[in-house]
Amino acid sequence: MSADIAATCAAAEAAFDIYRAQPLEARAVLLERIATEIMALGEELIATVMAESHLPRARLEGERGRTCGQLGLLASIVRAGRFLDLRHDPAQPSRQPAPRPDLRLRNIPLGPVAVFGASNFPLAFSVAGGDTASALAAGCPVVVKAHPAHPQTSRLVAGAIARAVSATGLPAGLFALVEGEGTEPGTALVTNPHIKAVGFTGSRAGGLALAALARTRPEPIPFYGELSAVNPVLLLPHALSTRGTALGAGFAASLTLGAGQFCTNPGLVLAIEGEGMERFIASARAALAGTAAQPMLTPGIAAAYERGVAARGAHKSLAPLANFAGGALFGVSAADFSSDPHLSEEIFGPAALLVRCASAAELCAVIEGLDGQLTATLHMDEPDHPLARMLLPSLERKAGRILANGWPTGVEVAHAMVHGGPFPATTESRTTSVGGKAIERFLRPVCYQDLPAALLPEEFSQNLPCLIDGKAA
Amino acid sequence: MSADIAATCAAAEAAFDIYRAQPLEARAVLLERIATEIMALGEELIATVMAESHLPRARLEGERGRTCGQLGLLASIVRAGRFLDLRHDPAQPSRQPAPRPDLRLRNIPLGPVAVFGASNFPLAFSVAGGDTASALAAGCPVVVKAHPAHPQTSRLVAGAIARAVSATGLPAGLFALVEGEGTEPGTALVTNPHIKAVGFTGSRAGGLALAALARTRPEPIPFYGELSAVNPVLLLPHALSTRGTALGAGFAASLTLGAGQFCTNPGLVLAIEGEGMERFIASARAALAGTAAQPMLTPGIAAAYERGVAARGAHKSLAPLANFAGGALFGVSAADFSSDPHLSEEIFGPAALLVRCASAAELCAVIEGLDGQLTATLHMDEPDHPLARMLLPSLERKAGRILANGWPTGVEVAHAMVHGGPFPATTESRTTSVGGKAIERFLRPVCYQDLPAALLPEEFSQNLPCLIDGKAA
Repeated sequence: MSADIAATCAAAEAAFDIYRAQPLEARAVLLERIATEIMALGEELIATVMAESHLPRARLEGERGRTCGQLGLLASIVRAGRFLDLRHDPAQPSRQPAPRPDLRLRNIPLGPVAVFGASNFPLAFSVAGGDTASALAAGCPVVVKAHPAHPQTSRLVAGAIARAVSATGLPAGLFALVEGEGTEPGTALVTNPHIKAVGFTGSRAGGLALAALARTRPEPIPFYGELSAVNPVLLLPHALSTRGTALGAGFAASLTLGAGQFCTNPGLVLAIEGEGMERFIASARAALAGTAAQPMLTPGIAAAYERGVAARGAHKSLAPLANFAGGALFGVSAADFSSDPHLSEEIFGPAALLVRCASAAELCAVIEGLDGQLTATLHMDEPDHPLARMLLPSLERKAGRILANGWPTGVEVAHAMVHGGPFPATTESRTTSVGGKAIERFLRPVCYQDLPAALLPEEFSQNLPCLIDGKAA
Repeated sequence: MSADIAATCAAAEAAFDIYRAQPLEARAVLLERIATEIMALGEELIATVMAESHLPRARLEGERGRTCGQLGLLASIVRAGRFLDLRHDPAQPSRQPAPRPDLRLRNIPLGPVAVFGASNFPLAFSVAGGDTASALAAGCPVVVKAHPAHPQTSRLVAGAIARAVSATGLPAGLFALVEGEGTEPGTALVTNPHIKAVGFTGSRAGGLALAALARTRPEPIPFYGELSAVNPVLLLPHALSTRGTALGAGFAASLTLGAGQFCTNPGLVLAIEGEGMERFIASARAALAGTAAQPMLTPGIAAAYERGVAARGAHKSLAPLANFAGGALFGVSAADFSSDPHLSEEIFGPAALLVRCASAAELCAVIEGLDGQLTATLHMDEPDHPLARMLLPSLERKAGRILANGWPTGVEVAHAMVHGGPFPATTESRTTSVGGKAIERFLRPVCYQDLPAALLPEEFSQNLPCLIDGKAA
């Protein structure tokens, strides 16, 4: 197994300089061709992933569309060339006291990237998912470690990518899938000297173990891990008083979507006690009671979920507000919540905790005590704006995305999206794994000083966006 | 000491939200005012830093100018607002199958930053140096750990910054200087929970120890360490044959500049054997013989340098080419160089190694075997371009800056500069500590989804550069 991985990584390394020397158009065409080949898998892909993930057809057809849309967005970003961050500070030969040299900057790809597919997005965050798409867009070869929960799906998609690589005349080593259970394959991949960055979506424990390997290699490499979040939802007083019932129903739908198996699942609700909150609870309880149980992705995820919910059921400070086949909602006082750090840990699945705050001040204090998050959501009306304005600086420091009057499940793939956030939401708060900036994870800047025109990278003569002396040309 | 540092970091944290809420203009004015206050220190500053660093007046006056120039460049970058990376993907309420929300992105500062001043740039990489300037520009409070080699200089400059903070009406906690010998103050600073990033320039051992602390805190934080480099200089055959003598003199000047105490000092020369190389050696030897010994920055640096040179003198594979008061140049075969990894380690000071390559292929192999570097330099004429073209992909992967027909000492502060590179040159190859992109180290993106206009950050209504649906507006 480790020998296979070494050979695979060596092939990726051999493909790297060939791939990155291609024109940007060749990269964009590859990404688009991958989308075409995925669609060409047709019903076989949908049937396979349904069988392996227990997710329903409509969700998976949507996820396939999102996967292909992601590849298309990145193709357009590659063509636009802005990700290269081209800069030119022209020489000033007569500057005093010393001449200024000619300086140019561009971003180059880091090298082969290891990607760990996620269980909960067997298409969009897996073999041809966001990490793979953004690494290929950056100019990096990719070695994907298949998630053991969907091996056939992984092989089908890997076949589609291999066909796209072949059809576009690129070296076969540019992409590879490796498989295997246990920690050995992941360890071999992250510690391979040819691998220059890692993209990971998964459990906090697994992610931290791999992150430690990445950081203690002879040559440490960046590890982009998305680990855990409870995605606080704040119900501000006026919104709660006027729309408590609607908010309860909306919350129940977001909590149970996809059996709660989303990184952005709303696992924590904060509200100030009162009549509105009771209406919210009653409405959520009613909606949750009507939710059918959905099979979870894997027996391991189902068992961990059951353990987490059982521990909450036995917790002396928690009161069940709704406990049913489709999920679990508990209530807790702000004081009890703040005194037990375990209560702010994620339970992967449709489980949530409602924190009853006595006042706006108590609500603010709960926010201050939270770890980093992928999202934070405000439900508010105009009379709530002063409180929201007070909360925003805290929320910005806690989360990668702040939503108003929506639900965090559902991550739009767009230029302005951030799917990231302070630790432990991710291991690198300065990055996002979804959206236009995802490509930046796999790039580093190089400066060329007085390099003769004949040797300059071609991008400098292609009329791409370029800052001249810091100004847009 | 640790209690003081805790109080200092708490004051920085208290200043953070106040500072980052200021308009960009206030940040720019602060940076400019710091430069003004540094210049107002006048002769007292120059005399103090001369006494503490043993560096000559002209160099220090130049370094002061560079320090103030850096503050000015960052002020202009703050005003331009491009560093915010504003993006807006407008809502598409009638999109099918689901509406698109309104998405906006901006970069926000990380929080209080710890900066470790360097010994070799008592002004430009110290208390008010590049790290401090780019952190303040990003919107982060700064706590500087003074380098023990220049305490009075550090206090004078810290006083200038404090006066600037006070004069611009900003909270005093925005900037602080902490002092102390040994590892305790640095450890207390890097592990303080209010500190959200670290900038460090110094020794590989010290940097790696602090980097490990930063990565294993309960909340890991980015550690931007610039550690070590030997900055290979490649003398290509045609250039060597036509200008070997001039290259030897130029090299000697770069090697001994500032007693060789630069991160970008050319500690490694690669050339293909022949008459040109012998002329280069003879010329370098003659120039070096005329170089006066300069006092080094600290007794510790001088002692480490002497030990390093003595070890080379005793090394069985090395031949002294020039050994003199002002520096040390040894020669080694490519095979011997490649067989001993210690020979590619930096000796901080005017010591260099010339690697005699038998062929272009051997030269390429030596490059392939090198660790990451801050710079790589090519001396070449037009007939050398084919070889240079072959080498460039390797050099790009090894170094943050590639120079043609110049010397790596001297780092222009400009938008397109990269002072960074793969490990161990730095701990984060995706960043630079000098130039326009240095500010990016202290920023992270936040997405605002459907946030009411009344609550949006002011920058979105200030006509700053903004990508609309990924396109420059």
